[in-house]
Amino acid sequence: MLPSAAVALNILFASETEDPGAWLPRLQSALPKDRFFTSPRDDIDVALVATPPAGTFRQLKRLKLVQSLWMGVERLLADPEFPRGVPLARLVDPGMVAAMSESVLAHVLDWHRHHYYYRSQQKERRWHRLKQFLASDRTIGLLGLGELGSDAARRIGALGFNLVGWSRRPKALPGVECLTDLDAVLEKSDVVVCLLPLTAQTRGILNARTLRKIRLGGAVINVARGGHLVPDDLIATLDDGRLAHAYLDVFEHEPLSHEHPLWTHPGITITPHSAALTEPRTAMPGIVENVERLRRGEPPLNRVDLDAGY
Amino acid sequence: MLPSAAVALNILFASETEDPGAWLPRLQSALPKDRFFTSPRDDIDVALVATPPAGTFRQLKRLKLVQSLWMGVERLLADPEFPRGVPLARLVDPGMVAAMSESVLAHVLDWHRHHYYYRSQQKERRWHRLKQFLASDRTIGLLGLGELGSDAARRIGALGFNLVGWSRRPKALPGVECLTDLDAVLEKSDVVVCLLPLTAQTRGILNARTLRKIRLGGAVINVARGGHLVPDDLIATLDDGRLAHAYLDVFEHEPLSHEHPLWTHPGITITPHSAALTEPRTAMPGIVENVERLRRGEPPLNRVDLDAGY
Repeated sequence: MLPSAAVALNILFASETEDPGAWLPRLQSALPKDRFFTSPRDDIDVALVATPPAGTFRQLKRLKLVQSLWMGVERLLADPEFPRGVPLARLVDPGMVAAMSESVLAHVLDWHRHHYYYRSQQKERRWHRLKQFLASDRTIGLLGLGELGSDAARRIGALGFNLVGWSRRPKALPGVECLTDLDAVLEKSDVVVCLLPLTAQTRGILNARTLRKIRLGGAVINVARGGHLVPDDLIATLDDGRLAHAYLDVFEHEPLSHEHPLWTHPGITITPHSAALTEPRTAMPGIVENVERLRRGEPPLNRVDLDAGY
Repeated sequence: MLPSAAVALNILFASETEDPGAWLPRLQSALPKDRFFTSPRDDIDVALVATPPAGTFRQLKRLKLVQSLWMGVERLLADPEFPRGVPLARLVDPGMVAAMSESVLAHVLDWHRHHYYYRSQQKERRWHRLKQFLASDRTIGLLGLGELGSDAARRIGALGFNLVGWSRRPKALPGVECLTDLDAVLEKSDVVVCLLPLTAQTRGILNARTLRKIRLGGAVINVARGGHLVPDDLIATLDDGRLAHAYLDVFEHEPLSHEHPLWTHPGITITPHSAALTEPRTAMPGIVENVERLRRGEPPLNRVDLDAGY
């Protein structure tokens, strides 16, 4: 039975990575009727989770909603203890979406303005200017046209770049040539930006075959999940001179191990899974909305389709 | 006497840096009535110049217009042979303006998203994530609110950054707190972007006193002229930890000499005066307009005030 509108809910905050000090005071102030806990109990109604401690779900006997604190939920879905009968909502946080677009734009412009090249020249104290291109000479390919892809498209397009986008299902976005044929997108793109959810269909999507379809001298930006990219295939494509540079924010195993060859490759810029972090300040309205929807007996927004995986 | 509308003009293209092959076919096609030359003659009406060979102006006896191929004209004005009685027009090239905004935005985002820091971490194969800020947590200060400053403001502001701007004369720009008090601008700014013309008043404007007024941990971006910045003062301000990073595109002597300490400072990113190059494709309409204005006996657009120096 769903709780009535007057009922206070028991809400668990469970994360080994998010700082409770940044979240709990804001949550308590935004949801003053409800009770918050940081350890599992059998009377928890809502679990707010990002990398919850092992065994968390086992103890939640009357759970009615799992609200992820992250946009990506593939780790939750891979947990055999995840309660698949309970609705799961992804977090769509406007601050995190803006952060992602900033990071993608920073990398697109770094490549477009040859800054990666000028940094390698600076190491040799060499003054050598490359040919300038206009944004309208370049095509940026976006893999994934959900909340992240569409916001990035809007901001990249505002600077005059051409845009082409790939999604599994047909989509329409203003200013973006939207295609469901991956090869067609890659062949038109100077830069490919991966913003896909990680699913069985997208794992390893950036591989020897696909990376070679990107236009000569282009770049790849992976800010989605490490599992989208085959690192050895990327290194070979860079070493062949097919691609000029790669920007990697995510890795199969994080932190990236000290011995990993990605760290030292001159054609690769590494950031420590920092492209876009959830912002408690901007995430609060979406979480509050889903808690209030549960209280009213309504399904959550941004509910994950467990079969699709996002 | 000014030529009548039917008269063909003799136009000199004089530059030791711009590629005539990129300019002359476009000029001839856009101004089919006129005659183009690449060596000085005494019957030249219009000189299109960017770093003209020494002695160029001496031979131009009936010159009626000097059209710079660059936006900055301080080198022309410093040439004792420059004919100060002839109208001089700066080039306002929309492609060059867009390029400048792209470069400035690339550097602002590089600092905002901590990419300069993550690159230093990558050298040590160290995975360490810094606190994320929202664009609305940051204030970007623009020195110079002309064509370049106002376009950069529009594009930086579109991402949600706060903007403050300095100009000698009072200005009003939407979304920018415009001030004529330099110290007030510096004290409010996390990042200071120099887009000023180089004049007697702006030479050395980025010095030990002013750089220390920028907010702690901030950055400076100099994409205007080398003479705006005192390099030793910048190095001291970085070494003190007052500023986190500097992005320098321009230098007093270019190319920057192999021995210069700016090349190897870990807090400095160097680009080879590549932030914004004139684009013959997009510059053509402004040049054609000024040639046609001369033909009609009208003063040129973007005429330089020789006393102000821009």
